[in-house]
Formats: sequence, structure tokens, C-alpha cells
Amino acid sequence: MTDSQNPLSKPHLTTRRVHPENQETPIHFIETDEISHHLFFKRNHFSYPTLPHSDYRLAIQGFVETPRLLSLQDLARLPPQTAKVVLECAGDKRSLFEPKVFGEQWDKGAISQGHWKGVSLRTILEFAGIRKGAKEVVVEGYDYGERPDSEHFYSYMRSLPIEKALHPDTLIAYEYNNQPLPFKHGYPLRLIVPQWYAMASVKWIKQITVIDSTFIGPYQSNDYVYFPHKEHNEGAKPVTNINVNSTIQTPLNLDILSTGTHVIKGIAWTGKGHITNIEISTDHGQTWSKAIFKKQEKPDYGWVSWSFIWTILEEGEFTIMSKATDSYYQVQPVTPFWNRKGYGYNAVDQIKVKIE
Amino acid sequence: MTDSQNPLSKPHLTTRRVHPENQETPIHFIETDEISHHLFFKRNHFSYPTLPHSDYRLAIQGFVETPRLLSLQDLARLPPQTAKVVLECAGDKRSLFEPKVFGEQWDKGAISQGHWKGVSLRTILEFAGIRKGAKEVVVEGYDYGERPDSEHFYSYMRSLPIEKALHPDTLIAYEYNNQPLPFKHGYPLRLIVPQWYAMASVKWIKQITVIDSTFIGPYQSNDYVYFPHKEHNEGAKPVTNINVNSTIQTPLNLDILSTGTHVIKGIAWTGKGHITNIEISTDHGQTWSKAIFKKQEKPDYGWVSWSFIWTILEEGEFTIMSKATDSYYQVQPVTPFWNRKGYGYNAVDQIKVKIE
Repeated sequence: MTDSQNPLSKPHLTTRRVHPENQETPIHFIETDEISHHLFFKRNHFSYPTLPHSDYRLAIQGFVETPRLLSLQDLARLPPQTAKVVLECAGDKRSLFEPKVFGEQWDKGAISQGHWKGVSLRTILEFAGIRKGAKEVVVEGYDYGERPDSEHFYSYMRSLPIEKALHPDTLIAYEYNNQPLPFKHGYPLRLIVPQWYAMASVKWIKQITVIDSTFIGPYQSNDYVYFPHKEHNEGAKPVTNINVNSTIQTPLNLDILSTGTHVIKGIAWTGKGHITNIEISTDHGQTWSKAIFKKQEKPDYGWVSWSFIWTILEEGEFTIMSKATDSYYQVQPVTPFWNRKGYGYNAVDQIKVKIE
Repeated sequence: MTDSQNPLSKPHLTTRRVHPENQETPIHFIETDEISHHLFFKRNHFSYPTLPHSDYRLAIQGFVETPRLLSLQDLARLPPQTAKVVLECAGDKRSLFEPKVFGEQWDKGAISQGHWKGVSLRTILEFAGIRKGAKEVVVEGYDYGERPDSEHFYSYMRSLPIEKALHPDTLIAYEYNNQPLPFKHGYPLRLIVPQWYAMASVKWIKQITVIDSTFIGPYQSNDYVYFPHKEHNEGAKPVTNINVNSTIQTPLNLDILSTGTHVIKGIAWTGKGHITNIEISTDHGQTWSKAIFKKQEKPDYGWVSWSFIWTILEEGEFTIMSKATDSYYQVQPVTPFWNRKGYGYNAVDQIKVKIE
């Protein structure tokens, strides 16, 4: 009978796929500014990797003056840096595209945030000495496997343009929320690329290679590319910055509510810049009113939480929408930008409720 | 690093709502004939109830010769009976209706099964002595609360027609899979009504009342009624027997697969009777072939597992469908029977995959 004292289950992630393990966070569990790693969405391309049993060393090599091998102890001695960063899967909200798009059917919960602590990638690159003419920095994870479109094995690896790699907030993280990185989220070291979709934040870093050319690999030229057309590749462009976006967390879509006063709640976020305005419509977009949120005095890379008080005395069906604007005047569009692989969905968020 | 030895998370239910706790089973976790209670979907109308701390007694009263109060020990002394029974929420697959229907947005996992052990309700009713003219048996649970459409408090209670109540396989269950009923699934006693949707299988039984009239209550005249029209109540009829149905478990909808041979797998079930035929189409319903499943020699109230070998050498998009038939010649329809509250969805199951 102990169960009846504390009857609700602990929240758990929703499983989209067992192998590889892909799980998202039910949006009603995103209740704080700092999500526990137990509730952090998991997006894997392959099985979890096997890490070297001992003697982990981070290699910094390629187009540098002095290739380096750094132990975790070496990294711990370098000046630490912490940033609150949203990680959003580029496929977050993919299931909302019409026509439907193939691939993991993420709902609205492939997003999370918390405090990442580590060393600026710039510090490490400068320690190795970047040679003049360096163009990109390739980061390879320990995870690897086959792809359905090929018989070759691939490691998960991607490059960053040198400017992004040198941004002081691009981190080699070793802690999440004051604890060592959990294995499933990249232990011992994970790249954290603020402002970009999370495919850039490579987990389980194996090595870092500076190059003087343009890196080409399936996770950059095949996946994580916006292909605006179904049948051909014209207009393709890489997925990079997070689009301005918002999600209604309460009420749930297709909820049945009573007449009276309800609090509509949610989050809003963007890549470059910060959120400057959030508007809510309860009449299917005919009229809009401002939601309440705390303006960030010193904007960080996190989301903002917003709320809106709604008093509704008539019965019927209502469409509620949320629309965020950022400091670069980017606004969520009414119609999503459809693309063949289903990345970057950021249309105005929309739910329907029935008042009884 | 222990995590990396056994890296996949234990499966967990998908949360549809936190309060009351409503959770379903990801269909890829339905892998056995006997689902662990940890993976059994949870469908609650209210908060979990507080049970009497001691001295639990089951009251059998109303239109009977001798009202009875039975302890759990008394029940344990009566002849036990075990049945493998599917419980399917009447709202299972509700999210698939078009136009959308308000209420809990269940995907395909509000279904489970296992072995229920208890005493035949008939045995208990006969022990109290059913009076001539008895028409229904009302079963009340300990769970209660408010409804959005009313300011009154209601207990969860429903009636069974006397014939169904007297069916020898209608059980007062006290064990699930050889263990005492878990609290969240109705401890100490749960009604199990084979063949009917699970709203009939009242949890946490408080009392049983035989009546000589027709019971009316919100869980019988308002909810769990098929209303075929959006705006009026004509043609309303109560939800009772489970409709013939099937679900494709593998592959997942909108999966990307390689050319070659794939095993398509799933389950099929019905209320009255048993499954006699399962057909699969891989060309959007133009042609159908039989799936393989084990004919039940002695049909029970469980589902059957089926599989189908599919060799596909061309690339492209394919719609896979499954269609079950039962021994009463009921067949899954192509178009679901839309009803305002979204019950009994059983259209031909359908997924799309892309072969690369």
C-alpha cells in the first residue's frame, strides 16, 4: 500500500525508438530552467559507443602547430567556463509537418537545457596553435555504425566553420548541472555549440581535427541539410542556427476544459539573439495579445518561460496559438518551411481545446 | 562507466497526462503474451484513491437474498479461476480519428494483456442469492472526483447487464500474472470483463450492487457512448464489446529501411469470438496476402501475434496495411466509424515506410 502514499509515477521519457535509443521529453515535464539529465531527450544515430577503458586522451590534430593529447586532468586544469544552453534536435516537431516526412517522428519534446561546464574549444585550439588558413574544425565522436542508404560504416562526425569553433562559448563540456556528463549525454566530453541545432553538439568526443578545406560527410551533406523539394536537391542548405520557436505546454492539445480562468503556459527560444516578444491568440489567430515573460537582463542561450491568463466563459472549441519574435526580428511563420528531411520546424504553435 | 555495459534504458510507458495519470505502452514494447504490470497502460479518470487502511470488505448488496461482506480471506477460499484477457481502453487509437476528437490522445498502446486470477463474479452473486427480476449489477470503485462538465463529485461506477455479470469468466480478480494486483491496476480487487472495452473492468472495487432497474451514470450515459454525430445525440449506443482490430508493431510508421527482406510484425484481437484471418498489404491495399499466426486451439480472450515476410528490392515509398477478421466475420473497415467522443477505433492499420 506504500504506492498509495506517493501514487504518481516518476516522469519518464517517451520512447520513439529502442535501437538506437531515441527518446523525448513529454512537454508537460519541462518545468524548470535546468532539466535533470534523467529527463533530457536522447537522440542517437547508432548504438551507444564503447569507450577506451582507461587512458582517455583527447587528440587535437591536423592543421595545427603542435598536435596535442590532453587527459581529463589536463582539461580540468584549464580555465573552466559554464553556459546555460538549449539543445534542440533539428528534427524536433518533425511529426507536425504536412505532408509527413520520413524519419524519427519527434513530437515537441526533443529539446532540453541546463548548465554545461567545460573548457572553451578556442582555448584548446590555441593551445595546439591554429595554423594560418585553417577553415574548419572536425569533431568526431566514438559512436559509429551503418546507415540505411549505404553499406559503409561511419563515425558520427561533423565540422564547424573556424569562426564558430573560435566563439568563446563553444565548449568542450565535461559537466552537466554540476555533475560529470552522464554517459548517455556524451561522457567524458561533449562539444556544446550554443545557438545551433543539437546535431552540432557531438557526444563522446574522440578527436578534434583542424582542416584547411571543407569537410564532407553524411551527417553534413546528406543528413542535416534542408532540401526544400521532394524529388530533387535544388536549394539545399545546411542546418545550422536554431529557428525562433515556441511551444504551448499547458493545456494539452485536444484537452477538454471547464469554463472559467485558465493559465496557458509554455516556453520560447531562438538561436541567434534572444526572445523579445511572445503573443498568444485564443481565436485561431484573429487577435493576438502579449504573453508575460521575464525579460533576460543578460541574455543567455536558454529558453524563456511564458504564461498567459485566459478567462473563457462560453462553451465551444477554441484554437490557441503562440508566436515568438527574437531580437533579429525573426518571427515564427504561420506555415512551416517544409523540407524533405523534416528539419527546423518552427511554425506558430497551435493546439485546440474544448470548453464544456 | 557501468552504464556502457548495459546501455539501453528500461522501457517505460509514454505519459499522455500527469494528473490523472494516463500512460500508454509504446507498441514496440509489446513483445510477449503476458505484459509485465510495469508496462501495462494506465487509464485513470481521477487521482488514485485512498483505500481503507485495514479491514477491507467487499460488499455485495441490493437486489439479493442475503447481502454479504467478504474479506480478502473469504475470497481466497472460494474456487479460483484464471483467464488470459486483453484489456483495451475504449479510446485506444483515438488520436487517429479525422476529424480530430477531444479527449486523451491515445496512440496505439492503450492495450495490454496478461493472466488475471480471481473468483467468478457469478460465484459471489450466487453466494448472496440473486433475486428474481435482477437486471443489472453495479460495480463501484474507490476512485472519485469532479468532471469538467459538472460541479458534482462522482465515483467511478458502471453496471453490467445481468447476463454478462453471470458469465463464468467475468472475474473479481485479485492477482495479475501470479502476483497480487498492483495498486495502480486495482488492488485489492478489480472487475475483469472479458471481451468488453476496459472501461467495464472497474478498479479498486468498493461495492457491488444488484439492481432491478437500468443504471444511469456519467460513465455510461455520457462517456463510453458512441455518438455518431458532432452536434446531436441521435443514434447513440453504449460502448461494450471490443471491435476486431490489429496493429503493426514493426516497422514503425515513417521508418526509413534498406532494400532487402524485412519482417513485418504485429498483433490482432477481437471481443466476441477469435481471430480467424490476418491479411497484409504492402501496396496501399491493392493486393493482400495472409500473415502467419498460430491458430488458437482453445481460443482465449487474448490477442494473437502475427508476422509477414516482406522482400522489397525497389526504392520508394510504401504503405503497409494490416486487416484482421474474426470468427463472427467481423472485418476491420477501411474507414473508421467516427464518433464524437472517439471510441472503438478499428480501421485497417496503416503505416508508411521509405525504402532507400
